[in-house]
Amino acid sequence: MSGVTSVYQLYGNPGSFEKKAEGIALGLTIGSWTDLPLLEQQQLKQHKGNVVSITEFENIQHPSKPEQIRAEIKIEYPSVNFSADLPAILTTVFGKLSLDGEVKLLDLEFSPELLAKFPGPRFGIEHIRNLLNLHNRPLIMSIFKGVIGRDIDYLAEQLRHQALGGVDLVKDDEILFDNPLTPFEKRITTAKEVLRQAYEETGHRTLYAVNLSGRTSQLREKAKIAKELGADALLLNVHAYGLDVLQELVEDDDIQLPFMAHPAYSGAFTSSPFYGVSTSLLLGKLTRYAGADFSLFPSPYGSVALEKKVALSLGEELTKASSVKRTFPVPSAGIHPSLVPLLMQDYGVDSIINAGGGVHGHPAGAIGGGLAFRQAVEAELAGIPLAEAAKQHSELRTAIELWG
Amino acid sequence: MSGVTSVYQLYGNPGSFEKKAEGIALGLTIGSWTDLPLLEQQQLKQHKGNVVSITEFENIQHPSKPEQIRAEIKIEYPSVNFSADLPAILTTVFGKLSLDGEVKLLDLEFSPELLAKFPGPRFGIEHIRNLLNLHNRPLIMSIFKGVIGRDIDYLAEQLRHQALGGVDLVKDDEILFDNPLTPFEKRITTAKEVLRQAYEETGHRTLYAVNLSGRTSQLREKAKIAKELGADALLLNVHAYGLDVLQELVEDDDIQLPFMAHPAYSGAFTSSPFYGVSTSLLLGKLTRYAGADFSLFPSPYGSVALEKKVALSLGEELTKASSVKRTFPVPSAGIHPSLVPLLMQDYGVDSIINAGGGVHGHPAGAIGGGLAFRQAVEAELAGIPLAEAAKQHSELRTAIELWG
Repeated sequence: MSGVTSVYQLYGNPGSFEKKAEGIALGLTIGSWTDLPLLEQQQLKQHKGNVVSITEFENIQHPSKPEQIRAEIKIEYPSVNFSADLPAILTTVFGKLSLDGEVKLLDLEFSPELLAKFPGPRFGIEHIRNLLNLHNRPLIMSIFKGVIGRDIDYLAEQLRHQALGGVDLVKDDEILFDNPLTPFEKRITTAKEVLRQAYEETGHRTLYAVNLSGRTSQLREKAKIAKELGADALLLNVHAYGLDVLQELVEDDDIQLPFMAHPAYSGAFTSSPFYGVSTSLLLGKLTRYAGADFSLFPSPYGSVALEKKVALSLGEELTKASSVKRTFPVPSAGIHPSLVPLLMQDYGVDSIINAGGGVHGHPAGAIGGGLAFRQAVEAELAGIPLAEAAKQHSELRTAIELWG
Repeated sequence: MSGVTSVYQLYGNPGSFEKKAEGIALGLTIGSWTDLPLLEQQQLKQHKGNVVSITEFENIQHPSKPEQIRAEIKIEYPSVNFSADLPAILTTVFGKLSLDGEVKLLDLEFSPELLAKFPGPRFGIEHIRNLLNLHNRPLIMSIFKGVIGRDIDYLAEQLRHQALGGVDLVKDDEILFDNPLTPFEKRITTAKEVLRQAYEETGHRTLYAVNLSGRTSQLREKAKIAKELGADALLLNVHAYGLDVLQELVEDDDIQLPFMAHPAYSGAFTSSPFYGVSTSLLLGKLTRYAGADFSLFPSPYGSVALEKKVALSLGEELTKASSVKRTFPVPSAGIHPSLVPLLMQDYGVDSIINAGGGVHGHPAGAIGGGLAFRQAVEAELAGIPLAEAAKQHSELRTAIELWG
């Protein structure tokens, strides 16, 4: 049967979960069952939510209610009940239920027929690699820093330094919106020229992701303008808009640009251990299904950090086998060159190493910062310990001295 | 200065909050301050986030980290930093920060200049009352029940019974999406005819709110069709789409229909005491600013219940003095006639009493259920105890016998 299977985490008394699960399966579909006449049961059977499994974790007590244990329940909802869009799916599986006490939505499993209605990334990891002609190493990304209130020349210089440092991608600061000093279109055209010059000087190509912002209905037109102006990629604060907004932009054949999903505001849904939506579902699976080519998230190592298990499962969701293309995992926040080996062990070569302060804070500036990251990646790929590689490369040496 | 002032709840060691607050105020605006040359400080001053206040609650310990206390910090962000749309505002004040540990967004205070850019409800409480020609009592609303998999005749009959019971509004089930059995347009035209007939028979007018669903970019066109077909109001699962999606629909002069905001999925943001966004901000202030004429939320009394303090502050946000119109508070879930006096004490006459099972589960059906609510409201307005009124009214008596 086509549909979506929802995995929830609950706490409750041992043995109480079957009734709870049945209540959810009926309450979020046809409402009642056993008191219906047989004829109506036959008529409604295809609409009924079904409890697939109940797993009680007897050894995992609720931290503040020791009589309660943790359970995971799986419920299947038939596609016939909802239109094939994420607002309808989220309302079905977690609409009312999100308000009903300690319940967390851990995962959604889409049937193949349902998944076929979602685009996934238009580009995906392979196509992005082709754009950059870069294979077999993680990409390196850096972020504009402190650009609010600054003019276009300031941004242009920052971009030039980042590009000369050899990073592969530069993204806008997600809090830089359209403004008179550095308007959207001007950022695109200026960046294009800066990156063209840098390419002529170094032969290294850097892509720039501009922040697509403003009112929801204007995003499409702005994205088309970006495309016409030759933009490389678009950054979107997906979770401040809604996943379906991203999906519609990705599906638009007049846009056809790579989309970078920023996790801004997503912590409001994902951070609680008891409520909301799991990080791997929201920033992983759903962001991929909706079509992001890149998904940013806090790495397990920075000051803003995800639990390692969570951060790894997120990377897994973005890249595991599926009928949709793979999304680049972009572990972020507090990344410096010494973390490169850890990140590559965690996420492999098909990932992006993304740094802000770790590039700009380098004593030799963003150029030195970018180079230090490139050197760290080369060393790790060659199996050379960073401390060893640092003897050959002054930028990497300086970075290690500074950040350890 | 035009801007938005954000109130956050944090936990931390006493005395640690000043540094944290300064870090947020700078981190979410210009990045750094004290190490900037004086000239740059002058240039960036108007963009700098400012700590307005820090309140430490020495007596409120963190439940699992007793060395930490609770604090509320207020930070002001200048309008010049963001475009006047909710995705930009939410990204600025709680984008990255939502991912940074135990921090909850309690409130946002908009400067008058900023608030002037938000529509608020197009209709509001007064205009909705005029539509119904009903003043000086709470409105009564009921909800379709168990309509998934049912045909249009089934819905028509349920609607007719609800209308004959004298309810003022009937809303779609939020999980009823567009489907072949009861398509959107057919629901509107069928309901219109059913309610016209009921009005001819009883002289009582009932409005029907149809669920506006589907892909984000199609909502506008569907809403216009609904308007042309003579729909009374639109229900929207706002939080599964995004607040800006509601706002754009409200602002569209070709739609001009009352909007009913359903809280589906909002619990994913609001339920945790430590993370996410407060209920009064999300379902109260922001839902009102974005333009909902009605905001549904769990009452403090049903099976799915909000804490009383939270539920009351939400009602307050929807109706307190402001430059935008007032939104009807619709406390919901598990409401039966005996709760009417409590709800009227909590929310006054400018509110809506909304019931599903409390109408349909009445032994005399939805007609009896509706009547029982009407009788309870009349009694409370006349200062007659329900037990006393029940002697005169069999429907109310039956309801009290059943639900207590």
